Amino acid sequence: MTASRIGVLVSGNGSNLDALLSASRRGDLPEIALVLANVAGCRALSRAEEARVPARFLDPRAAPSREAYDEALAAELGEARIDLVCLAGFMRLVGRPLLERFAGRVLNIHPSLLPAFPGLHAPRQAVAAGVRVSGCTVHFVDAGLDTGAVIAQAAVPVQLDDTEESLAARILEQEHRLFPAAAAWVARGEVALEAGRARWRSPPQRAEGAIACPRTDRP
Amino acid sequence: MTASRIGVLVSGNGSNLDALLSASRRGDLPEIALVLANVAGCRALSRAEEARVPARFLDPRAAPSREAYDEALAAELGEARIDLVCLAGFMRLVGRPLLERFAGRVLNIHPSLLPAFPGLHAPRQAVAAGVRVSGCTVHFVDAGLDTGAVIAQAAVPVQLDDTEESLAARILEQEHRLFPAAAAWVARGEVALEAGRARWRSPPQRAEGAIACPRTDRP
Repeated sequence: MTASRIGVLVSGNGSNLDALLSASRRGDLPEIALVLANVAGCRALSRAEEARVPARFLDPRAAPSREAYDEALAAELGEARIDLVCLAGFMRLVGRPLLERFAGRVLNIHPSLLPAFPGLHAPRQAVAAGVRVSGCTVHFVDAGLDTGAVIAQAAVPVQLDDTEESLAARILEQEHRLFPAAAAWVARGEVALEAGRARWRSPPQRAEGAIACPRTDRP
Repeated sequence: MTASRIGVLVSGNGSNLDALLSASRRGDLPEIALVLANVAGCRALSRAEEARVPARFLDPRAAPSREAYDEALAAELGEARIDLVCLAGFMRLVGRPLLERFAGRVLNIHPSLLPAFPGLHAPRQAVAAGVRVSGCTVHFVDAGLDTGAVIAQAAVPVQLDDTEESLAARILEQEHRLFPAAAAWVARGEVALEAGRARWRSPPQRAEGAIACPRTDRP
């Protein structure tokens, strides 16, 4: 596929939205044509407005069911002729109505090296587990919780004095780099979802870019 | 703790044993004083013999039970006054008799970034899962399967054309670097098992060495 109009779903601060907007302004990513939020007045909405991108709060409580809310999201995205959907800190599982309408065209970023630490508070989970490496993952979204096919991952060190906050901040830096890059690969058709896997069009060596370890500290 | 005599348990090729032997010869690690194998004639045994390290096959079938085999291992290690036990590709769960006698003094290396991909064939699991980052983990051994407290991890990229073999080889390079380093930290008392966690004596910045990402490929 090639995509020309990106929709972004948000719930919170919107720093990943900002990274996508910047990449789009630089010409590295197609137009961000719509931003939808499930949280009224979230910072991400005002960032979108500052960037003069159409942005709207869709109230989950106004929908009679989870499915109906998903259908409302899908309808808004469809009306705006969105062909790639990026979940940028969207704190809600998306369901079949949206996933079927945008099959293979919904991406999420998660702050761990999946399959480790799916679900909420991944940096907190990583600190509690005592791991020494964590990172972030961009993946195609399926109906599970952070289970979809992996597109790209970046690793970061976990330091001994890390808190949830300090680790989350280190991972977030990589998210801001990785999400626009991975979204661009999907938008350009370099990688696509096929039979539940990420399939790459380009030669394998191209995809070495799919990992980045930002620092090397040798024992 | 500080350790002065290391015992190594092996089952197979013994390339991690070789890395430990080299580190010991360089003076980076205490003496490797005993090598025990649960597989007759494995390559690791001949490597130990070439290095003139006492090495012995202990036949699991000669032990009436799993516990009895564990007790036999513990007895041999105890007789050799071993104070740090390294599992270097030892394809067998070690049980309470050994873990109690060598509490906090048994280390294992596993070819994944735990908690991802515990158990057998970790590189195969990683390739099948389609992740883009994997690595290896040195951890204190507990009674679970690859569940003990993490000491050190190193990350490697997974490339799109990787097979189980090519990924395992890339991870193995890091194992050879990481295992001697982590064993030395434990032997010098820089890190110890306390209440199920790896506790570091040295200031946090010292432990940045606990991660290494061998390459940086930026998208």
